[in-house]
Amino acid sequence: MKPIAVILSGAGVFDGSEIHEAVLTLLALSRAGVPYRCYAPDRDQLHVVNHLTGEVAEGERRNILVEAARIARGEIQPLSALSAEAHAAVILPGGFGAAKNLCDFAVTGAECQVAEDVSQACRSFIQAGKPSGYVCIAPIMMPRIFGEGVRGTIGTDVDTAAAFNLMGGDHQSCPVQEVVVDPSHKVVSTPAYMLAGNIAEAAEGIEKLVAEVLAMCER
Amino acid sequence: MKPIAVILSGAGVFDGSEIHEAVLTLLALSRAGVPYRCYAPDRDQLHVVNHLTGEVAEGERRNILVEAARIARGEIQPLSALSAEAHAAVILPGGFGAAKNLCDFAVTGAECQVAEDVSQACRSFIQAGKPSGYVCIAPIMMPRIFGEGVRGTIGTDVDTAAAFNLMGGDHQSCPVQEVVVDPSHKVVSTPAYMLAGNIAEAAEGIEKLVAEVLAMCER
Repeated sequence: MKPIAVILSGAGVFDGSEIHEAVLTLLALSRAGVPYRCYAPDRDQLHVVNHLTGEVAEGERRNILVEAARIARGEIQPLSALSAEAHAAVILPGGFGAAKNLCDFAVTGAECQVAEDVSQACRSFIQAGKPSGYVCIAPIMMPRIFGEGVRGTIGTDVDTAAAFNLMGGDHQSCPVQEVVVDPSHKVVSTPAYMLAGNIAEAAEGIEKLVAEVLAMCER
Repeated sequence: MKPIAVILSGAGVFDGSEIHEAVLTLLALSRAGVPYRCYAPDRDQLHVVNHLTGEVAEGERRNILVEAARIARGEIQPLSALSAEAHAAVILPGGFGAAKNLCDFAVTGAECQVAEDVSQACRSFIQAGKPSGYVCIAPIMMPRIFGEGVRGTIGTDVDTAAAFNLMGGDHQSCPVQEVVVDPSHKVVSTPAYMLAGNIAEAAEGIEKLVAEVLAMCER
């Protein structure tokens, strides 16, 4: 089986990839015996957040790819090197990095635009007929990437679900242990830390998401 | 059950806590239904490593506690606040941060000194008769913390094992999926990424370590 591409957005829930979600994704893939390759945009994060205080570290700059390399143990490539041809599927973990660095949802809400490099990479999997998985807040990009009517979940948050629908998506409420599958768009989503009270809860949904994405690869 | 204390050393394999090992530790605790509390020293890392290039980022400074907060999703306290009385056990994940920020093994080898705050915190669990778990390279601190004859593993690396013994420890070779238990010192160790070829292998040993530590808590 070709490796699964995992698109990261930094390393830390408040300004990058949610670390638990990213690691749980890699764990589920590794336990399924499926190889993975990590990618991230080679550009600066929107900002840097001090994760102890929750405050923005004014004047500090960090590169998305360089920080994401911490999760990938150095084994990561720039998003510009990602080819759908070389992979069986793509998965995007969550964290504010997905809403700040991969798109601008955290700033613009339903006016959200997905970064061109991210949009192009994700659409290349759709064009190749290959499945995708979106975790936590990452599904907010689905209406822009897949277009009108795509079915997905960000959990149960009313405002975020409304934005998903306003952008043309078909939002489904979903508990943390479950996933929403849109078979026609070959995409799976799960709430993870949009709802999870602890890491074990997040793991349950992410394991199901990985299993569903892999099942689609095999069809 | 009282929570388990987890001592972190930053966030990233080359200059802090190995992120996978730290997350796998939290996952195993959460799945066992046991609460945890994260701690880290509130002082600067030895240095900052660019995890994409592997090179030291000259002139850059990062605080161990602030970076470790990325793994803990902000829920972390300074190591100085750690009381053995309030916890059932302590676990130290690995990564170069254990050998650079918690002790100076990465620089001095068998002349290794454990940082005073770390030594004091870890010894308080021994004095309270409470169990400990050391993952990956973190066990290199065990001879200094527990004293002569403590049994542990750093996997199979000949030079590191020799240093462990030179410092007074009783090193046991151990495969990645297994743990070494020293019942008289109530301490468990596992090689994790000292040997792991992938995250699933690291997870297997860490899950066993957490199970053994928790079993000792219940005795």
